[in-house]
Amino acid sequence: MAVYTRINSEDMAALVTQFGVGELVSAKGIAEGVSNSNWLLETRGTPDAGRFILTVYEERTDTRDLPFFLNLLDHLAAAGCPVPRTIHDSSGSAWRTIDTPQGEKMLALIEFLPGVSADDPTPAQAEAVGAALAQVHLAGQSFGDFRRDGMGPEAWRGFVRSCAGRWSEIDPVLDAVPALVDDAIKRWPADLPVSTIHADLFPDNVLLVGDEVSGMIDFYFACTGPMAYDIAVTHAAWSFTPDGRHFDPAIGDALLTGYRSVREPDAAEIAALPDLAKAGCLRFLLTRAYDWLNTPADAMVTKKDPLAFLRRHAFYDERGAVAFGVLS
Amino acid sequence: MAVYTRINSEDMAALVTQFGVGELVSAKGIAEGVSNSNWLLETRGTPDAGRFILTVYEERTDTRDLPFFLNLLDHLAAAGCPVPRTIHDSSGSAWRTIDTPQGEKMLALIEFLPGVSADDPTPAQAEAVGAALAQVHLAGQSFGDFRRDGMGPEAWRGFVRSCAGRWSEIDPVLDAVPALVDDAIKRWPADLPVSTIHADLFPDNVLLVGDEVSGMIDFYFACTGPMAYDIAVTHAAWSFTPDGRHFDPAIGDALLTGYRSVREPDAAEIAALPDLAKAGCLRFLLTRAYDWLNTPADAMVTKKDPLAFLRRHAFYDERGAVAFGVLS
Repeated sequence: MAVYTRINSEDMAALVTQFGVGELVSAKGIAEGVSNSNWLLETRGTPDAGRFILTVYEERTDTRDLPFFLNLLDHLAAAGCPVPRTIHDSSGSAWRTIDTPQGEKMLALIEFLPGVSADDPTPAQAEAVGAALAQVHLAGQSFGDFRRDGMGPEAWRGFVRSCAGRWSEIDPVLDAVPALVDDAIKRWPADLPVSTIHADLFPDNVLLVGDEVSGMIDFYFACTGPMAYDIAVTHAAWSFTPDGRHFDPAIGDALLTGYRSVREPDAAEIAALPDLAKAGCLRFLLTRAYDWLNTPADAMVTKKDPLAFLRRHAFYDERGAVAFGVLS
Repeated sequence: MAVYTRINSEDMAALVTQFGVGELVSAKGIAEGVSNSNWLLETRGTPDAGRFILTVYEERTDTRDLPFFLNLLDHLAAAGCPVPRTIHDSSGSAWRTIDTPQGEKMLALIEFLPGVSADDPTPAQAEAVGAALAQVHLAGQSFGDFRRDGMGPEAWRGFVRSCAGRWSEIDPVLDAVPALVDDAIKRWPADLPVSTIHADLFPDNVLLVGDEVSGMIDFYFACTGPMAYDIAVTHAAWSFTPDGRHFDPAIGDALLTGYRSVREPDAAEIAALPDLAKAGCLRFLLTRAYDWLNTPADAMVTKKDPLAFLRRHAFYDERGAVAFGVLS
């Protein structure tokens, strides 16, 4: 959580004029996101003035994918999904570059949306999130761009190799992971209906006002993939305490019920959910384990515990279809 | 720049209801200030709803002084100075406490003000800042609370002792500092008119919309002291490039002209400005040197160069009254 790039306030004001949203009257660096710099801006003086999030993409973001992410926001917003619109500059582009002491960086201006992320979501909120996810899946089917899931099954063996021989530095119980990953890759379903999926819809990526979803944000893992995988990932992300020790069936069921109120998953999707949930748990376990082993001890980033997803994996392994019983 | 305290969003929403400003609809941790945690909040649903800054005071703030700082904001705001009002809770208090994993902390909710700090101020902006500073001095005279300047002459010998024998770890040229401090203490004028002064009015503590001062913020060094010292500190803070190498007389003169448009310094104050400017330079040199020598190498705080204020000191030493000639 930090602002990595320093922008002189006069340069910031000049930058904002390129987007035709009036004159800059406020700019606050916000402690949000782990890999990009973000500011909450306010402008005035034109009909399009208002509040915006300015994001400068730092090293960890693959900016080759930026057009995909930003076009997706525009596509989903136009379809009525609660996602922020991007603001296009005077040349029509949704992104620009800026010279910084660390070299040229890409940046984008997107609409500010109200709302607060739930740390302790209610079933009513989970139901709204499920419905919003289904809205994204329906709208995402008419999005023309394609993006491979960079964190999908094809990437997992690479993460396993990177962690080889070092699992026990985190916890010896993780020595089981390579076999679990092999199994998940074998069981990955080949022919489920696909759309554009969020693939990282944790509570901190959803803004809520009361029980309404006011914004789904942080689409930087969005990709083309099985909708059922996104349902499973969201289920794993919302229905447990953060440490993965306790499952709350009321949240999980509300999420699935909300989803179904907008889009009915087919029988093959429902049948695949237990395997996909286990796969999703491994995806987050792997990236967390990788980060755990590769984050310098003095870095200011909070290490997220990979075991929280091994526990979720065990839950889905044990419960199977029961965890998704409300859909049957 | 960071958010040190984590507040669960449900706790944050409950906290905000204590202030009678409606229901929380947005909360963004902001990367502002070096020693406190700050959030930009938005509320809705009551006439007093709006945007606010929530500050949780961390270890480095002496919370015994918090009533002074917060009462001062209310006093100055009521007198029409461009400073944020504090929001009082349902019991009438301008501060509350919150339990955190690091123990009980104090917090306050203050009005959000628009505006951007100038990195490269114009003379018109400096003139407005000078006028706003004089407004604070006039209004501050009727503020009943007293606070000693914890960073004033009485504190300097303590800083000198803390740095003893270590000046050359920063730069050998700093070996001259103890004698300069002795001289500044001897020359500190005893009988200038006092008021409540900001004592730290650097450009990053002033919010501007165009050429207007929309907000003076960060009064956490405010104290009872000579108004001329505050003029001198502000002159030293605004009229130089950050490294202290280049003085811009147009900025310095505009600042003094703006000040004089609201309050006329008397002859003794004007005569004292060169000594007070040198004293102000030493005050910032000392705290920067102390921080330089006492900040762990791996801390994420940017060390500020003490030499930038030794250079300013040399400038005032050489120019004397000429630097403030516009007032004569």
